[in-house]
Amino acid sequence: MNELGIDILNGSKVIIAKERVNKPMDSCGESKNIVQGEYNIDCPFCRGNESMVPEETFIIEEDNNWVSKSVINKYPILDDDISNQLYGRHEVMVETYRHDGNFYNMKNNEFYNMFIMYKDRYESLMDERGIKYVCIFKNYLRQAGASLMHPHSQIISLPLIPPELEREYEICRDYYEKMGINMYEHIISQEIKEDKRVIYNSDEFLVFMPQVSRFVGETIILLKNNKYFEEIKNDELKELSYIFETYFKNMYKENGNCPFNIYIHTHPLNEGEMYKKTFNIHIHIVPRKFNLGGFELSTGFYVSCGNVEEIIKKLKFK
Amino acid sequence: MNELGIDILNGSKVIIAKERVNKPMDSCGESKNIVQGEYNIDCPFCRGNESMVPEETFIIEEDNNWVSKSVINKYPILDDDISNQLYGRHEVMVETYRHDGNFYNMKNNEFYNMFIMYKDRYESLMDERGIKYVCIFKNYLRQAGASLMHPHSQIISLPLIPPELEREYEICRDYYEKMGINMYEHIISQEIKEDKRVIYNSDEFLVFMPQVSRFVGETIILLKNNKYFEEIKNDELKELSYIFETYFKNMYKENGNCPFNIYIHTHPLNEGEMYKKTFNIHIHIVPRKFNLGGFELSTGFYVSCGNVEEIIKKLKFK
Repeated sequence: MNELGIDILNGSKVIIAKERVNKPMDSCGESKNIVQGEYNIDCPFCRGNESMVPEETFIIEEDNNWVSKSVINKYPILDDDISNQLYGRHEVMVETYRHDGNFYNMKNNEFYNMFIMYKDRYESLMDERGIKYVCIFKNYLRQAGASLMHPHSQIISLPLIPPELEREYEICRDYYEKMGINMYEHIISQEIKEDKRVIYNSDEFLVFMPQVSRFVGETIILLKNNKYFEEIKNDELKELSYIFETYFKNMYKENGNCPFNIYIHTHPLNEGEMYKKTFNIHIHIVPRKFNLGGFELSTGFYVSCGNVEEIIKKLKFK
Repeated sequence: MNELGIDILNGSKVIIAKERVNKPMDSCGESKNIVQGEYNIDCPFCRGNESMVPEETFIIEEDNNWVSKSVINKYPILDDDISNQLYGRHEVMVETYRHDGNFYNMKNNEFYNMFIMYKDRYESLMDERGIKYVCIFKNYLRQAGASLMHPHSQIISLPLIPPELEREYEICRDYYEKMGINMYEHIISQEIKEDKRVIYNSDEFLVFMPQVSRFVGETIILLKNNKYFEEIKNDELKELSYIFETYFKNMYKENGNCPFNIYIHTHPLNEGEMYKKTFNIHIHIVPRKFNLGGFELSTGFYVSCGNVEEIIKKLKFK
């Protein structure tokens, strides 16, 4: 039976149509993409092709060679002209020098370098005058909005709170005002108690797949303690690296080379302490197996097909 | 200079970053898809494979053979169980018997059959008890959410007004209350006066590309007279067929075999006459050259890159 559900984190309306996952699909413009080799002569993010991109803003070296680096995006979504209404910085964070690296084959220490870089660039971008939000995200494969294969994430600073974050902040603020407790803490205790959707659980993190979400298989990594992004400790970044390595290994077994997005939802900047007690940082992992179609664009409904319980069983950490 | 804009039809916030269209792109999981032949042995929508799908609800014949038909969707987004909260019908409208047909090569009379079918199925689905909205849409290629190549549209009846339509109705109702005139009529006279974004203009239709829209190249076909979808006359469907044939020929020259969505925004059902004077039917044509990525999902902003004026010049009817 199809049902209407609400994504509790952002209020999106989702039609749950499990059986629709069985619909027939032909090739219909899909492709498999395998990248081979650590170096590609045309790739601006490869080691040896440094002249193709602006100078680094951040670098991690091993054996006198960079292994991770961040560079200014030459085609920014936001302008770095401070007189512009839409002032902001836009950097590309190259996760590893390996052209054929990706989240499905990256090692623990590669993820760790990436998270160290995320934190460094976040701290740098949040510090600029007038910045209200810093957005970290990643697109993997064209279906998830990527332009280039070389493994990279992006970070953008914004002079205004984005609409989707406005929604999330409002939802958790309303919850706090009505119920007197932090909504995320309530979710954590509920999910642990029910123990149906938990993929991984530790002192610091809960990884779970919400009952209803905009994209089937969407996974949330929730920080249990309400701290700001810049307060996350290296030990926690180490644990996050373990979580990512394990999660994507399991996901590859289930879905193969599936396109996905990552994005981190953090606190608004310079908005006082209110959100520290009402909002917890969380990372969205969004598989993009199915593209949004005309129904979703026309109606604003999301359609979720597939059996979430079965996916959870396969992703659960042993 | 990047700017923030608002899509006036639905209030979406759009970051306009024209230069970003020049960003480098590798193959990154993209593919070209060429379909050959009028018949495919595995295709449920091909002539001769009728046993693979439920019986037709509608058919157009030529020379004792069907050329267009509508069938019940075997994997519906909504249930046809009337006791369900999410009751609704979901049909697949096969636009032409030709497996290798598509909007880029379909002839005027094939479009006309399609629109006759749209209207017939709309009238049938709107008539059921408790239905508040009937949604017509099309997905072309996997990037636009399609599962199968054989040319088809879809129609779904819904027992509630979808969120996106709620937004559009609210915007035009507010406009009417504040300004005392129909917002769409205002857009029509403004666009004709400015004459910068008009692609086609006649007594019945204005085809134009809004200054700001969620997807670059998004085109609106606006009915000039406020009538209900079931009131559209066959002469107007003929003109629409001409518009579609010409538009997609021009678009192919510009963009090649580009994925796209079509959706028609019509009036709410059984909501009284209020919306007849405030809302005009319009068709969205949405090229899906770029996929939504992590930035859009994370922030709720849309990013529009590319030069709309240049695209308009190429699409304008001679």
